[in-house]
Amino acid sequence: MATAEWKMAELGARSGVPVATIKFYQRENLLPPGERTSPNQALYGEAHLGRIRLIRALIEVGGLSIVAARQVLEAIDSERPLQETFEIAQHSVSEAIDPETLTTDALTHVDALMSGWHVSADNPGRLAAARVYDTFTGVGQVDAAGWFRRYAAAALLAAEADIDELDARAERAAKAEIVVVGTVLGDTLFSGLRRAAQEHVSALRYATPPAAEV
Amino acid sequence: MATAEWKMAELGARSGVPVATIKFYQRENLLPPGERTSPNQALYGEAHLGRIRLIRALIEVGGLSIVAARQVLEAIDSERPLQETFEIAQHSVSEAIDPETLTTDALTHVDALMSGWHVSADNPGRLAAARVYDTFTGVGQVDAAGWFRRYAAAALLAAEADIDELDARAERAAKAEIVVVGTVLGDTLFSGLRRAAQEHVSALRYATPPAAEV
Repeated sequence: MATAEWKMAELGARSGVPVATIKFYQRENLLPPGERTSPNQALYGEAHLGRIRLIRALIEVGGLSIVAARQVLEAIDSERPLQETFEIAQHSVSEAIDPETLTTDALTHVDALMSGWHVSADNPGRLAAARVYDTFTGVGQVDAAGWFRRYAAAALLAAEADIDELDARAERAAKAEIVVVGTVLGDTLFSGLRRAAQEHVSALRYATPPAAEV
Repeated sequence: MATAEWKMAELGARSGVPVATIKFYQRENLLPPGERTSPNQALYGEAHLGRIRLIRALIEVGGLSIVAARQVLEAIDSERPLQETFEIAQHSVSEAIDPETLTTDALTHVDALMSGWHVSADNPGRLAAARVYDTFTGVGQVDAAGWFRRYAAAALLAAEADIDELDARAERAAKAEIVVVGTVLGDTLFSGLRRAAQEHVSALRYATPPAAEV
């Protein structure tokens, strides 16, 4: 870590996070200890400040639990292959789904959407998409306009952007961090942009109500 | 509602939902009462079964609270204009964000992504995307490969698929239901497909580990 020169109170002031919360992050092994200068004092620096901001992003914006946040932070700090860091990040933001609870029809349908893709049978996203298919048909809906297929095409564009961001980083630590940040924030970013785009497309198509152009 | 001929116990058996849970849904005004045939008995039919499945989809798969689920179900049942149903569905799946907590830089950046789109200033997706931008830059990340812009393009494709599904329905009730189902399930579908696509794109690009093709 870079030069540590701030006391805990200053780290709190700079991060905007209460000192009690910072101490909680340390007890939970989310944040490394400071540089000890005496039995009663430790100093902190930019690296700690950056880590606190990342913890906040994972928990407050990404909605991760403390346990999930610890797992992805450990993956960033480790020397694991990036592929493993990706898997840990994916699992941290995915609900565990028992494949036994899914219909064969749903899995077949989702695999057809991903025809030609290299995807493991236990990819959490494959199972999540199959559950959506079961739910969609379970409420009596029919995919009348290629909704699933078109979502798969959009998801492929987003995934290519994700991997390009990864490739744009040189160092292993920076690659691991963008894997985690992109995985956690990407869902929120996309869902936000989709809601804005829904308003736009429906305004275009139905021409009412006339929303202001931003 | 269609012909009601099942007792509560049979409705429970057909839906796979415990009778106590079904009674809870009734008390919470998520599920309408049955057709009363005597002071102690009411009968239920396909319409009740379909509604229970929709409630499960909203709560279990969509992660909606009871209050949010009630709001969107009321919107489906109402005679509100579809545009309002859309807004209610969007708010039900969006965290309320105070625009005052966002930087001007984030809003400017997100509005540039949506240049030419007709989007209200208080669209919850616009605010959510701006918060992601603030978080992304707050953890020291730089958008090196057009990540935000490409997500906006993908979101536009998904929104067009959403509105096409809406247009494929003739009746107001069916349109309102797909608005709600698509809004709630669409986030989960996309994030699942994105995780699968990430595995595919990284397997293609790094050629290791060799995942099985599904």
